[in-house]
Amino acid sequence: MQKPSIPKGTRDFIPEEAIKRNYIFDTIKSVFVNYGYEPIETPALENLSTLLGKYGDEGDKLLFKVLNSGDFVSKVDDALYAEKNSVKLSTAISEKGLRYDLTVPFARFVVQNFNKINFPFKRYQIQPVWRADRPQKGRYREFFQCDVDVVGSNSLLNEVELVQIIDEVFQKLEIRTVIKLNNRKILAGIAEYIGQKDKIIDITVAIDKLDKIGNEAVNKELSERGLADSEIDALQPVLHLSGSNTDKLADLKKVLANSEVGLEGIAEIEVIFDFLAELSFESKVELDLTLARGLNYYTGAIIEVKALDVQIGSICGGGRYDDLTGVFGKKDLSGVGVSFGADRIYDVLNQQNNFPEKTMQTTQAMIVNFGDTEVKYALKVAFELRQAGIKTEIYPDSTKMKKQMTYADKKNIPFVILIGENEMNENKISVKNMLSGEQDMMLVEDFIKKIH
Amino acid sequence: MQKPSIPKGTRDFIPEEAIKRNYIFDTIKSVFVNYGYEPIETPALENLSTLLGKYGDEGDKLLFKVLNSGDFVSKVDDALYAEKNSVKLSTAISEKGLRYDLTVPFARFVVQNFNKINFPFKRYQIQPVWRADRPQKGRYREFFQCDVDVVGSNSLLNEVELVQIIDEVFQKLEIRTVIKLNNRKILAGIAEYIGQKDKIIDITVAIDKLDKIGNEAVNKELSERGLADSEIDALQPVLHLSGSNTDKLADLKKVLANSEVGLEGIAEIEVIFDFLAELSFESKVELDLTLARGLNYYTGAIIEVKALDVQIGSICGGGRYDDLTGVFGKKDLSGVGVSFGADRIYDVLNQQNNFPEKTMQTTQAMIVNFGDTEVKYALKVAFELRQAGIKTEIYPDSTKMKKQMTYADKKNIPFVILIGENEMNENKISVKNMLSGEQDMMLVEDFIKKIH
Repeated sequence: MQKPSIPKGTRDFIPEEAIKRNYIFDTIKSVFVNYGYEPIETPALENLSTLLGKYGDEGDKLLFKVLNSGDFVSKVDDALYAEKNSVKLSTAISEKGLRYDLTVPFARFVVQNFNKINFPFKRYQIQPVWRADRPQKGRYREFFQCDVDVVGSNSLLNEVELVQIIDEVFQKLEIRTVIKLNNRKILAGIAEYIGQKDKIIDITVAIDKLDKIGNEAVNKELSERGLADSEIDALQPVLHLSGSNTDKLADLKKVLANSEVGLEGIAEIEVIFDFLAELSFESKVELDLTLARGLNYYTGAIIEVKALDVQIGSICGGGRYDDLTGVFGKKDLSGVGVSFGADRIYDVLNQQNNFPEKTMQTTQAMIVNFGDTEVKYALKVAFELRQAGIKTEIYPDSTKMKKQMTYADKKNIPFVILIGENEMNENKISVKNMLSGEQDMMLVEDFIKKIH
Repeated sequence: MQKPSIPKGTRDFIPEEAIKRNYIFDTIKSVFVNYGYEPIETPALENLSTLLGKYGDEGDKLLFKVLNSGDFVSKVDDALYAEKNSVKLSTAISEKGLRYDLTVPFARFVVQNFNKINFPFKRYQIQPVWRADRPQKGRYREFFQCDVDVVGSNSLLNEVELVQIIDEVFQKLEIRTVIKLNNRKILAGIAEYIGQKDKIIDITVAIDKLDKIGNEAVNKELSERGLADSEIDALQPVLHLSGSNTDKLADLKKVLANSEVGLEGIAEIEVIFDFLAELSFESKVELDLTLARGLNYYTGAIIEVKALDVQIGSICGGGRYDDLTGVFGKKDLSGVGVSFGADRIYDVLNQQNNFPEKTMQTTQAMIVNFGDTEVKYALKVAFELRQAGIKTEIYPDSTKMKKQMTYADKKNIPFVILIGENEMNENKISVKNMLSGEQDMMLVEDFIKKIH
């Protein structure tokens, strides 16, 4: 006998949790579909050649590798085997791995299925991914990503649409958010402006912390990262841009007047804000020049969403990558998309205690089991109720009434139906309202009307 | 640059396929929910200690094992390493594996989450499983299972309910089926009756082939498997039972009059048929004594479903297992359930060309992109349409009309909306019906009415 357990960083979901998660997935999906996005699925197992080298050295280490089948070790070269080196050995005994995100498999999918795809291709994908990360609060080794992307269109209208989608998702989920926008080209322009084109990553990593550690500490970090005092001084106006999005952009345009790439980024973001101005949003949509997310990856827009009422990392993010599929042999196919973090959204909704009651309800009516004769009658009643769309169960065992009622109570079933001799004679059912405790005898069709 | 590919036995699903699959999953789910079953999810990764030894020696070989993270090889004992034995080495370098089915993880789940569960526990689970099987037509290394089970109730009403669920699922999917029932105890009784209690597996494997190879060949196989001629003779009346379910059971009762376990099996199946007689079914429900599915596993009812109009293996199957959770330390918890084979169901529906048109439709209206001014107007129109539940997209790029129309055509979008100066001046939209080719100018609200 063994004590049951699951690998660390993985989770079981009991019904209550699974139902809540499905509510999040279904809500997100319903918005994607409303905007014309279509689902795809890719296998959990990818060839390691597809995954390796796509997520940096650190990412390579976090890939879950799957052992080759059969007598895998006999195929390993003796000299290599003798080295007893984990990295080399793993290459020799493992060809497949679990997907690490949905973006790389999507790029692979687009190239592999190129002739079956209608471009611009608007797809969504909601599937689990795996990372051999050190598990900690809110970080799992197996978790879901909900990605929505357009590939094969350079239009900034796609960015606008993503902001609409984000706003609609969080409106439906009743989560108050701020949607932050930036553009990789603006960050490049800022680096160019202070004369440190190659230090773009150092600069953005530092200014990314402005909110957390304050201005002085950021300046200190910039200095440590090798910026001269004059360069740090030059950066200050950028750090302290304020006012509306329009104000910030106007000021920034002056600062970056000599940076071609910077002006390009500003122009892009102006187009986006120009379109956004035609619509109204529940979320605050703002330009955030300190937003540097996924810097090595994105080439244009950068998007990130924060919940306003709960302290938690970003709950959605993404951006544009101009050469999504290049590594798989299709050049110049631009993609833009965002990924919703289902686990964090779950935590936010749980903290706000904001799952709709209707979502949480499963069985609507349970028929008490008084024995075979009554069950035969109950089978027909249950059939009628289910036909009418009322989720119904018959308690399977003819056990003590109290046990059956406890079951109904624990499952939050709102109506319990009692069928005895009286009910059968009168062709009726007795319905007990579990909330009020009231009990009435009625026709099945009257109960159906009552529920509807 | 690399040519993109996926591991053999795995699949990408393009939108058309993903939508069809979701239709199957959603239909199955809707029936499960209508009977009060609740969803759970378990991780794809399980500890190998949970999986090994549960599926026989053959099954152990088919498990996908995941390499331990980090410098896994340094932890391997030198002597063991020197043996270069795949089986021993894999135990030393791999602790986790991909789940092989949903039943063992469910049993593990029940024991591990025992105190959170409301018994009898009616759960469904729709998740992928992985098997390192040799891929072939219709057999994949990564595929979905759709399981529905009740655990913690011995009542035969659960078996009845499963037959109802099966019937309702296939009625909704419009697949004509026969639902075959048998009972492990009857098979045991038959083996006992011919005096070969221990040869139950040989006997059932042989008679399982009756349909395919005929009576004579079955008798030959029985002889090869060590049955005496007299024993084979004794078996003949059982093989040739005919008539209604009631007739068969009456005849069988005479044959098995001296087998306690056999009579028990007959009694169980009589109760089931007695309940089933109260209801009407689309599917044929029949007793099939040659049904021997999962013999090592089930202890009571055995259920299997065949499609009538397409030549394919069983599309659903299951049964009762009296000691589901024993191996994980909870004794005497009986379970009964069935698993729907989504891949085969997909093949049946594809062959019958029987996916509802409505399911296949994604975007309902596409607005042509004539440039930024028109798009600003279009953004508001699209917003209104989506608010009214009409799935709408705006073509993202202001390219040639023909290209935009081809996109709409390929995506089977039924209505294309054109917005030019006229339309904007009159506060209207022009709607082109892509099927009839007709084009009309109308108010947005009239288009909404037209669609609804």
